[in-house]
Amino acid sequence: MTKKLQVGIIGAGRIGKLHTENILRFPDVEIKTIADPFIESAREWGQSLGIQHLESDPMTIINDPEIDAVFICSPTDTHINVIEAAAKAGKHIFCEKPISFSDEATMNAYQIVKENNVKVQIGFNRRFDKNYARVKEYVASKVIGDLHILKITSRDPEPPSLDYVKRSGGIFMDMTIHDFDMARFVAGSEVTEVFVLGNALVNPEIAKADDIDTAIISLKFENGALGVIDNSREAVYGYDQRIEAFGSKGAAESKNEIDTQVKLSTSKAILEDQPLHFFLERYNEAYIKEVADFFQSIIENTPITCTFEDGIMAQRIAQAAKESWQTGKPVSVKRIDA
Amino acid sequence: MTKKLQVGIIGAGRIGKLHTENILRFPDVEIKTIADPFIESAREWGQSLGIQHLESDPMTIINDPEIDAVFICSPTDTHINVIEAAAKAGKHIFCEKPISFSDEATMNAYQIVKENNVKVQIGFNRRFDKNYARVKEYVASKVIGDLHILKITSRDPEPPSLDYVKRSGGIFMDMTIHDFDMARFVAGSEVTEVFVLGNALVNPEIAKADDIDTAIISLKFENGALGVIDNSREAVYGYDQRIEAFGSKGAAESKNEIDTQVKLSTSKAILEDQPLHFFLERYNEAYIKEVADFFQSIIENTPITCTFEDGIMAQRIAQAAKESWQTGKPVSVKRIDA
Amino acid sequence: MTKKLQVGIIGAGRIGKLHTENILRFPDVEIKTIADPFIESAREWGQSLGIQHLESDPMTIINDPEIDAVFICSPTDTHINVIEAAAKAGKHIFCEKPISFSDEATMNAYQIVKENNVKVQIGFNRRFDKNYARVKEYVASKVIGDLHILKITSRDPEPPSLDYVKRSGGIFMDMTIHDFDMARFVAGSEVTEVFVLGNALVNPEIAKADDIDTAIISLKFENGALGVIDNSREAVYGYDQRIEAFGSKGAAESKNEIDTQVKLSTSKAILEDQPLHFFLERYNEAYIKEVADFFQSIIENTPITCTFEDGIMAQRIAQAAKESWQTGKPVSVKRIDA
Amino acid sequence: MTKKLQVGIIGAGRIGKLHTENILRFPDVEIKTIADPFIESAREWGQSLGIQHLESDPMTIINDPEIDAVFICSPTDTHINVIEAAAKAGKHIFCEKPISFSDEATMNAYQIVKENNVKVQIGFNRRFDKNYARVKEYVASKVIGDLHILKITSRDPEPPSLDYVKRSGGIFMDMTIHDFDMARFVAGSEVTEVFVLGNALVNPEIAKADDIDTAIISLKFENGALGVIDNSREAVYGYDQRIEAFGSKGAAESKNEIDTQVKLSTSKAILEDQPLHFFLERYNEAYIKEVADFFQSIIENTPITCTFEDGIMAQRIAQAAKESWQTGKPVSVKRIDA
Repeated sequence: MTKKLQVGIIGAGRIGKLHTENILRFPDVEIKTIADPFIESAREWGQSLGIQHLESDPMTIINDPEIDAVFICSPTDTHINVIEAAAKAGKHIFCEKPISFSDEATMNAYQIVKENNVKVQIGFNRRFDKNYARVKEYVASKVIGDLHILKITSRDPEPPSLDYVKRSGGIFMDMTIHDFDMARFVAGSEVTEVFVLGNALVNPEIAKADDIDTAIISLKFENGALGVIDNSREAVYGYDQRIEAFGSKGAAESKNEIDTQVKLSTSKAILEDQPLHFFLERYNEAYIKEVADFFQSIIENTPITCTFEDGIMAQRIAQAAKESWQTGKPVSVKRIDA
Repeated sequence: MTKKLQVGIIGAGRIGKLHTENILRFPDVEIKTIADPFIESAREWGQSLGIQHLESDPMTIINDPEIDAVFICSPTDTHINVIEAAAKAGKHIFCEKPISFSDEATMNAYQIVKENNVKVQIGFNRRFDKNYARVKEYVASKVIGDLHILKITSRDPEPPSLDYVKRSGGIFMDMTIHDFDMARFVAGSEVTEVFVLGNALVNPEIAKADDIDTAIISLKFENGALGVIDNSREAVYGYDQRIEAFGSKGAAESKNEIDTQVKLSTSKAILEDQPLHFFLERYNEAYIKEVADFFQSIIENTPITCTFEDGIMAQRIAQAAKESWQTGKPVSVKRIDA
Repeated sequence: MTKKLQVGIIGAGRIGKLHTENILRFPDVEIKTIADPFIESAREWGQSLGIQHLESDPMTIINDPEIDAVFICSPTDTHINVIEAAAKAGKHIFCEKPISFSDEATMNAYQIVKENNVKVQIGFNRRFDKNYARVKEYVASKVIGDLHILKITSRDPEPPSLDYVKRSGGIFMDMTIHDFDMARFVAGSEVTEVFVLGNALVNPEIAKADDIDTAIISLKFENGALGVIDNSREAVYGYDQRIEAFGSKGAAESKNEIDTQVKLSTSKAILEDQPLHFFLERYNEAYIKEVADFFQSIIENTPITCTFEDGIMAQRIAQAAKESWQTGKPVSVKRIDA
Repeated sequence: MTKKLQVGIIGAGRIGKLHTENILRFPDVEIKTIADPFIESAREWGQSLGIQHLESDPMTIINDPEIDAVFICSPTDTHINVIEAAAKAGKHIFCEKPISFSDEATMNAYQIVKENNVKVQIGFNRRFDKNYARVKEYVASKVIGDLHILKITSRDPEPPSLDYVKRSGGIFMDMTIHDFDMARFVAGSEVTEVFVLGNALVNPEIAKADDIDTAIISLKFENGALGVIDNSREAVYGYDQRIEAFGSKGAAESKNEIDTQVKLSTSKAILEDQPLHFFLERYNEAYIKEVADFFQSIIENTPITCTFEDGIMAQRIAQAAKESWQTGKPVSVKRIDA
């Protein structure tokens, strides 16, 4: 039997815990160490899962020659340092989105990653959802002909705390970045221009934090197709995650996932289940598939499917969106090679 | 028994014929005269319906003191003259959209209409569709709370001829104008800004005619809500007419009407009916209701529900949209009183 | 211009009024006379529609040589006499269901109809609904292969009065007879055996009237297919009218018609419209199509599509169902030629 | 840390392997031994999962004092002997359906189980499906009022081999037994009478094996409600598993589960996904939940939710159904205490 892949998890917050529990399903992978500055609050949880090393310093992971790959689940402002250190230590990297809030910093880390020839996967989990994968397949295989219009509806069931909003990098970096990645993924073409209409309609306090909670984002794609994303921080009926690709030969529309297929008919109304509440429920399988894909790329030495470049481009579209919202004008998006 | 309302129809093309046949259902209304420069090609049709006067000169209608109301179904470039003449002759007016291609001309006709105190209804038939009426009701009664996002999907099943495109006034005046009216109708608020992304993806010849066939149109409403319309001149699966109003307490979504509720399951697929093919089928009932509403306003002397002012505003949004598409920038929309 | 078809309506209750108002839409048909023993209560209604002759004696219609066709909308126990008199007078007949409560009487009338060579259509309006017509087409054209199972759900939104129940002939003659006809119509094969499970669950008083309000009726078809009908006198959510044909190559399922296609999403639930309330709304178009079909058969002298024989067979299945319910055993159904 | 629950699996066919792989997910449970007369063909599979003891003689499990519970996944004709031996050895039992083909044998085993006070769960996995659980909840809590009609559609996507059919005990014991259990589970009431219409329409060879492949089964419940099950051995569009509970205050309808929520619109049709292909995909989660429930009952010493008595009753209804099909008459079902 071959040696198991040794993994370290940096950051034991909600998403770090999620990945940890999912990774435990993989018989060929072992989580050697979890590191978090506040590791004490996660110690009981980690021990119950049989994790041997629970540390406060992420460098324990970086400096451990036995560890093959790291999961970066710490706050965004720590990503660059950890990516660079991990790359120099020759470790493969799974990094949560966004890579950073600065294009310059991200591009610098990108150079280091390339020089050290490690694999990097960015955590755009939705690519691994079977519904979106089906829509992408219909677009890529031209079942719907040439893509003309791509529509993404992405609404959270409840807004984050104001406190979180203030350090989130804004709605585009925090929330819409997933939709920007989805737009590129499904369209199979780069976004070249963004125009934003936005407002703070859910909570006016968000405006004081110089952010918005409701947006209509128009996109121009390199291949001539047009796109639009609509966002809200609060859809009271649940997590609303839909996509529609319209083309010269038809359209593919991915509707919301619901819990049961039970329809209730009463003297008042006909009722169906609401969309699954939030991302943990909705993308449960996708979170497992994305790490499976990461491990497979490492074990079989095949290319990563959701790359550093994908992270860079989503981040650039988010930056352009922010500028469009601030200036009230359309803004173009730079390509990596530009 | 009271005297029947006497009506004249100006223009015996597709829409003139449609209104004629619908009006025949109203026992209290009589079509006295139909006028069209090419009346010969419609004579057989008109006689089979028992219409007594089939004339080539619209002035026969304007000058007939017995006629109470006129339906203006002639080409757009004739509207202003006919409106002004009919208003001066004291006749009530039902006028197809758009009123004209010029804001100045439209505002001039508006003055004359007001001075002569006649009723004018503009032919935004979709307001009378039960689905949209329901969505509007949910918005107006705040069942969905405050409106945050309004989305309109409006795609024709097949493009018009290039020849028609060239004299249509462009996609915004010809096609999207219905969606602009719907946006104002459902939102219950004025559109203050428009931004357009457009392209000629269905037929590149349309670009040569200085027009587009595919568009994403972002809207800012006075009440803070945001909107988006997506248009295509060709949805191969049928006439795609959907609307979604999203607010602080929920969302209302009007899906396409289909012919039968029959689902077919085979070894290959599960199939349902496509959307009803085009506007005659889809808005069949709405066309009847709009003229019923017009007649009721005249007979009972109550206010028109789809007014000249509604026509002016839809036309102004269309003009702003055209300017946005030409300049690549967002454009504001003037209010009537501005 | 040819002479209009002259029609007499016998019975001015709910269904007589419905047919009257529908017939007024046909320019080639004129309702000369309406007869009802209680004609006074319908006089105002009849006059407002411009019907010239409003009589109390149905023989006024039978004896009027100008009348070409009669609509028999009087109570079931009068049908036989009127059919026989009308047939002898050479008039074409549209008769509501059931023909009678007695097979002997029905067969006697059948002989007289045949001897006098008049056309008779029985009022199984559902055959003219576009949804069922589509399902039948999928069965007849073998799109679903050979029929294996036919399922009919037929539930009224509210029970009739106990008084009505007592003179209705029982649930099978009054309500299920439509489903028996639909079963033969869609299957394209005769029902050879019936087995009933029934109960009075909606209203125990119905049991005292020796009737039931809830039933599961199993059917054996001559072609080997199996069928089941489920009935209830009260579905609180609306008029539930569905059918499903399952075969060797697939299945066709006709779902309920609803008023609008609007889906409402709230923090409590996702809601859709209930089924259209009752037969007047649900089968509005079908009632018009069935009389159109009748008139066309007369005017063009083509065969009736819903025949006396269809009426006989549905009545026989209803009788067998009643016997099965009373004896607790399966009962076979006699063919007309048996 | 407490000792793990030790489990033995008897039978390494399809269902034995399914349970084995699911049980590996439970950290508190260890599969000590798998026994099957043809264990060699399963040895590689068992070793890859790390199962230590792979034996040919089931008595290895029965006689192993360390084993707490056995899963009986061997052919039906071996169930009784194994149940009796396991019960006498004091082991808890999870037994696949049906318990046996003989009511006498089953009742004898039932006595032995009671005398030895072991827990027995029967493998009616569908009870653990979230859709059916929701429908049952709506019935039990009277959200739909009193139950009037229960409808179950249960159609396999493809027929088993003729060879399997011959030793399956017939369609009612093999396939419908799940539906009989579901009927009792959802109705919360005993079935008192059964009537069957059946035919061999999928494959006439099945008739030669004295069996059928298509059936309509009417059910009378003790509480007055009525039920119907329709079965086919071959639904070419997929595994069709639906249920509908109709009552005095409404109805609950569980539709099929599908793979993705993607709708494809083309110039030909609107297409959705077919039902999940077969029981492994459709009841994937339910199979995991049923063993979780079994383990919880043992570990916490709480009552089993799907009991030996449930197995007896489903078997008796299956026997009554067979008799009804053979005699063409309704047949009553005996209660356990009768």
